[in-house]
Amino acid sequence: MANYRAPLRDMQFVLHELLDVETTLTGLPGYQDANRELIDSVLESAARFAEEVLQPLNRSGDEEGCRLENGQVITPQGFKDAYQRFCADGWTGLDCDPDYGGQGLPKTLGFPISEMNTSANMAWAMYPGLSHGAYAAIHAHGSDEQKNTYLPHLINGNWSGTMCLTEPHCGTDLGLLKTRAEPQADGSYQISGTKIFISSGDHDMSDNVVHLVLARLPDAPKDVKGISLFIVPKFLPNGGGVGERNAVSVGSLEHKMGIKGNATCVMNFDGATGFLIGEANRGMQYMFTMMNAARLGVGMQGLGINEVAFQAALAYARDRLQMRAMNMPAAPDKPADPIIVHPDVRRMLLTMKAYAEGGRAFSSWLALLLDVEDRAEDPAQRQDAADLMALLIPVAKAFMTDNGFEAANLGLQVFGGHGYIREWGMEQFVRDARIAQIYEGTNGIQALDLIGRKVLLDQGQKLRKFTKLVHKFCEAHEGDAAMAEFITPLAQLNKAMGEVTLKIGMASMQNRDEAGAAATDYLRLLGHLVFGWFWARMAALSLPKSHEPFYGAKLATARFYYAKLLPETQMLLARLASGAKPLMALEDEHFQF
Amino acid sequence: MANYRAPLRDMQFVLHELLDVETTLTGLPGYQDANRELIDSVLESAARFAEEVLQPLNRSGDEEGCRLENGQVITPQGFKDAYQRFCADGWTGLDCDPDYGGQGLPKTLGFPISEMNTSANMAWAMYPGLSHGAYAAIHAHGSDEQKNTYLPHLINGNWSGTMCLTEPHCGTDLGLLKTRAEPQADGSYQISGTKIFISSGDHDMSDNVVHLVLARLPDAPKDVKGISLFIVPKFLPNGGGVGERNAVSVGSLEHKMGIKGNATCVMNFDGATGFLIGEANRGMQYMFTMMNAARLGVGMQGLGINEVAFQAALAYARDRLQMRAMNMPAAPDKPADPIIVHPDVRRMLLTMKAYAEGGRAFSSWLALLLDVEDRAEDPAQRQDAADLMALLIPVAKAFMTDNGFEAANLGLQVFGGHGYIREWGMEQFVRDARIAQIYEGTNGIQALDLIGRKVLLDQGQKLRKFTKLVHKFCEAHEGDAAMAEFITPLAQLNKAMGEVTLKIGMASMQNRDEAGAAATDYLRLLGHLVFGWFWARMAALSLPKSHEPFYGAKLATARFYYAKLLPETQMLLARLASGAKPLMALEDEHFQF
Repeated sequence: MANYRAPLRDMQFVLHELLDVETTLTGLPGYQDANRELIDSVLESAARFAEEVLQPLNRSGDEEGCRLENGQVITPQGFKDAYQRFCADGWTGLDCDPDYGGQGLPKTLGFPISEMNTSANMAWAMYPGLSHGAYAAIHAHGSDEQKNTYLPHLINGNWSGTMCLTEPHCGTDLGLLKTRAEPQADGSYQISGTKIFISSGDHDMSDNVVHLVLARLPDAPKDVKGISLFIVPKFLPNGGGVGERNAVSVGSLEHKMGIKGNATCVMNFDGATGFLIGEANRGMQYMFTMMNAARLGVGMQGLGINEVAFQAALAYARDRLQMRAMNMPAAPDKPADPIIVHPDVRRMLLTMKAYAEGGRAFSSWLALLLDVEDRAEDPAQRQDAADLMALLIPVAKAFMTDNGFEAANLGLQVFGGHGYIREWGMEQFVRDARIAQIYEGTNGIQALDLIGRKVLLDQGQKLRKFTKLVHKFCEAHEGDAAMAEFITPLAQLNKAMGEVTLKIGMASMQNRDEAGAAATDYLRLLGHLVFGWFWARMAALSLPKSHEPFYGAKLATARFYYAKLLPETQMLLARLASGAKPLMALEDEHFQF
Repeated sequence: MANYRAPLRDMQFVLHELLDVETTLTGLPGYQDANRELIDSVLESAARFAEEVLQPLNRSGDEEGCRLENGQVITPQGFKDAYQRFCADGWTGLDCDPDYGGQGLPKTLGFPISEMNTSANMAWAMYPGLSHGAYAAIHAHGSDEQKNTYLPHLINGNWSGTMCLTEPHCGTDLGLLKTRAEPQADGSYQISGTKIFISSGDHDMSDNVVHLVLARLPDAPKDVKGISLFIVPKFLPNGGGVGERNAVSVGSLEHKMGIKGNATCVMNFDGATGFLIGEANRGMQYMFTMMNAARLGVGMQGLGINEVAFQAALAYARDRLQMRAMNMPAAPDKPADPIIVHPDVRRMLLTMKAYAEGGRAFSSWLALLLDVEDRAEDPAQRQDAADLMALLIPVAKAFMTDNGFEAANLGLQVFGGHGYIREWGMEQFVRDARIAQIYEGTNGIQALDLIGRKVLLDQGQKLRKFTKLVHKFCEAHEGDAAMAEFITPLAQLNKAMGEVTLKIGMASMQNRDEAGAAATDYLRLLGHLVFGWFWARMAALSLPKSHEPFYGAKLATARFYYAKLLPETQMLLARLASGAKPLMALEDEHFQF
C-alpha cells in the first residue's frame, strides 16, 4: 500500500530557491509576514496532517464509498473526524479574509497544501476544496449581508459549499441550462430544476451545505447571457445558525469510476429558496472570476496523484526483486535484483518524477501570480500576472491532469499484476485521477479556451508575454556551454511556438475548424514549452551544486526531461502541420459500416 | 450504455479483400473447405452470439462480480447459461482437432471471434480463452493417454482449463518459482505451492477445471531450466467422467480493478495429484510454444475493447447536442449541434477507428500466419511464417493493448462527465482494458523480448524479412502519384527502422542497457511501421473505389493515420537517439529526497 511522504524538500526548493516567493509575497499588502520561516512551518504542519490523518483513510474511503440514507449522505468512516480536526486546526480558513475569521495567508500556500491533501486522499480533499470555491464566489460578488451570513461559517468549516452548474443535457454548453428562478415578494427566489455531478453535494461532516446555483430568471435571454448565480443553502440561515430545511434534496448518488469517498450528487431543487448574488444575468461572469483558481486546483489534483503514484512505484521498484541487471548483478546476494535497475522501469519512474517536479514548479509560479494579480500595487504588474495566468491556466489544468493520469498508469505498470489488485492502492490512483481530465471543463475544452480565447483572440499578445520570458532566459544563458544542452532546444521550441501560432491563426481565418483541430496538440506543445523552461531554470540553479545529491538528481531529471519527454513536441509539430483536413474529411454518417 | 454491433463488414474487407485468406487457407491440408462462404457464415453466427447473448451480461457481470462460497467460485448471473449455450453451439471446439471432437477450422477464424466476444464481454470471454490454452498445451505436448483423457472434455467445454504460472514473489522472473512436484510410486506427482492471479481458476460453469501448473522436481536445476509442466485437475478423471476431488483449492478471489466477472484466484496446491506433461524440466519450453497464440489472444482483447469503445463513443457523439460547429450550425433546428461536428471530438473518434481497423488487419494477418506455420507443406513457407510471427507477436500484444487502453480512455472522454459514471459503461472498458497491458508478459517485457530475443539475437534477420515486405510494397507503388502521400513516409520509416536497429545493436554491444533503454520506444516504432504498411495497403485497395462510401471512409481513415498518428514515430526516433544515459545516470538512492 502507498505510504505517502509530503515532498517538502522539493517544495522548499521550488518556493524559495527557484521562485523566491518570500520576496514577492512580503512585498504585497497584507502579506508582510509571509516569510520563509512561516511558509515552511505551515507546510510542515500540513504535511503531517496529510500523512497522518488523511492518508490512512484513502483506501478505506474508496472501498466504503458514500451512501444515501433517508435523504442524507453518509461519508466513509473517519472522514467526519478528519474534517473536524481539519477545521479545528484552522486549515479551512488559511488564505481567507481575516475580516470574516480567515487567516489571511497568501494563496501561494494554499496550492501546495492542496497537492498534499490530494496525494493523501483526493476524495476527502474535494470537500474543503469545493467550500473554498463557494467562499471565493460569495467573497468576490456577494452583498455585505451575504458575506456576513455565509463567510464566517464557510471559513470555520461549520458550513460547506458546492458549485451547481451541470444539468443532464448540458455540461460544456451552459447556454442550454434550464433551472428556473422565480422572484418572490420578499426579494428571494424560488429555484427549480435538477443539477447533476454535484461534488460534495451533501454529506454528514458540516451543519449546512451552501449551494451556489446557476439558474435562469423568467425574462432572461436564452443563452449564456441569461444565467444568474444564487445562494441556495440546505438549511436557511437563522440568527447565526441554521433554521428551516430548504427544498433542496439529493436525488441520488452517482456511481462513479473513482473518487468514491466524495459524494457526487444529483440535486433536486423544488422551489428552493435562493438568494441572488450580485446582478441578474451575470452568473457566468461571476463563475469565470473564480475559474482560474478552480482550474489550477484541478491541475493540482493531477499533480497530487502524479506525486503519490511516483512515490509508491519507487518504493515498489526498490523492493521487488525480479531478473538481473543487464550489465552486472546489482544485488548478487539476493535471488534477483530490485527492478529499479532495469532501464524500462527507470523510464517509467523518471517520467513520473519529471512531470511531478515540473508541475510543482509551474503551479507554484501560477499560484504566486494569483497573489500578485490580487494584491500588487502596480497595475501593470497586476495586468501581466493576469495575462500570464489567463494564458497558462488551461495548460495547468489539462497538461497536469493528463500527465497525472499517465503517471498513475505508469505507477500501476511498475507494480505489474499487483498494480491491478485493489489492495495495493495503485489502481485507485488511476480511477481517481481520471476525473480530473474531465471536470471543471474537459481537457478538450481547456485546449479550445487556450487557442481561441487566450491566444488567437488577442493576436498572440498574452502568448508573447510568456515567450518573451523564455526568450530572455535563453538570452541570459547564451554562450554558457554547460547550459547549451537545454538552451538550444528550448530556444528552438520557443521560436517554433510563435511560428506555429501564426500559421494556425492565418489558417483559422479561412476555416475556423483549423483552430479546433489544432487545439489539443497546441496545448501540449505549450505545456512542454512551459515545463522545458522550468526544467532549464532548475538545471541552471542545480549545475553549480550538482555534487550535492539533491541538485545532482535535479540535473539528471532535467536531462531526462529534455532527452525523453520534450521530443513529444516533434510529434505535435508534425501533427499540427497537417491541419484540419484529415479530421474533417470523413462524413459523419460514414464513420461506421 | 454500449450497444455493440460486430464489425462484420470490416472483417470481410480484411479477410477477403485485403488478405484473401480463402486462397491461402484452402491450400493448407485439412482446411480445403475453409472458403469465403463458410468463413462468413461462421462469423455471422459468432456475431449474433456476442451481440445477443454476451453483451447483455457485460455490465451486470461487472457489477455483480464473482464470489467464493464454501470454496466454490460462483460466477455472475447468466454467465453459466451463456457458457452452456456456447458449448452446445460448438464454439469451444471451433479450431480444435477433429480427432478429439473439434471442428477443425483454421485458427484464422478463432481470432476475429475472440475480438467479438471481448467487445461484448471481456470477463466472460476469458473463460473459454483460458480453456483453449490448456487444450493447446496438452494437444502439443501431452501423451496419447492425456490427450484422450482431457481433450474431448476441453473441446466440448464440459471441462475448462487454466494456466498456473505466477507466484507471489515471481511473475516475469519465473526462474524464481517455488512450487514443488514430488514423484509418487504410481508415476504421478504431488504438487505443493501457491499460485496467484489465476484467471478462471475456479467457477461454476463446467464440471471440472484442468490446471496446467509449472512446478519444480526435487532435483531440478534452480533456474528456468528446472521447471516442469503438470496437469492438475480439480477432480481426478474417472472412467470418462470426474472422480475424487483433488487437493487443489481456491485460497481467495483477487479484488481487481476490472474484469470482475472473471474469477482471478489464488490457488493452493496442497500435495495435489499432478501428471507430468512431456519430459521433466521442459515446462518453460512447452509454455513458450503456446505463447504466440496466447499473446495474440491478449492483443485481440486490446482490439476488442478498442472497437466497442469506439462504437459507443461514436453513437454518443452523434446523439449528444452541445455547442455549435465552428463554421456553420449543423443542426440549426436543434438547440445545439451533435458533438461529432467538433474537430477535437473527431480526433478522438478517428484515433479509435484507425487503431481498431489497423489492428484488425494486422492481427488477421498474424492469425493466418499461425495457420501457415502450422500447416503449410513448404518448410520455407512455414519458416517465414514462424519468423514473422516471432518478430511481430510482441508488437501485436503490446501495441494493440496500449492502443486499446488509449481508445477506451478516448471513448470515456467523448462522454465527458457521463463517461465517469458506471451506468454508461465506458469506465468499465477502461478498467477491463488495463489488465491486457500487464498479463501474459507486461508490455515492457514484450518490448524486451522484441528487441533482445527477436531482433538483436539474430542480427536483425527476422526484422529484415518484414522490412523487405514493406520495401517490396513501396517499390510496387513507386511512381504512383495517388499513393505517394503514403509511400513516401512509409519508405522513410522503413529505412529509419533499419538504421535505428543497427545503431541500437552497435550501442548495446558496448552497454547492454542500451537495448533495454530503447525497448519500449522501439516496439512502438515497429508498431507504427506495421500499421503504416497496412493502412497504405488498405488505401491502395480503396483508392480505385473511393466513390463508394465504405472505401471512401477507409481512404479518409488512412489519411488520418498518416497525418495524425504516424507522427509519433518522430518522437520515438528522437527519444531513441538519446540512448540509455538519461535513464541510467540517476543513482537509485537519489530518486527521492
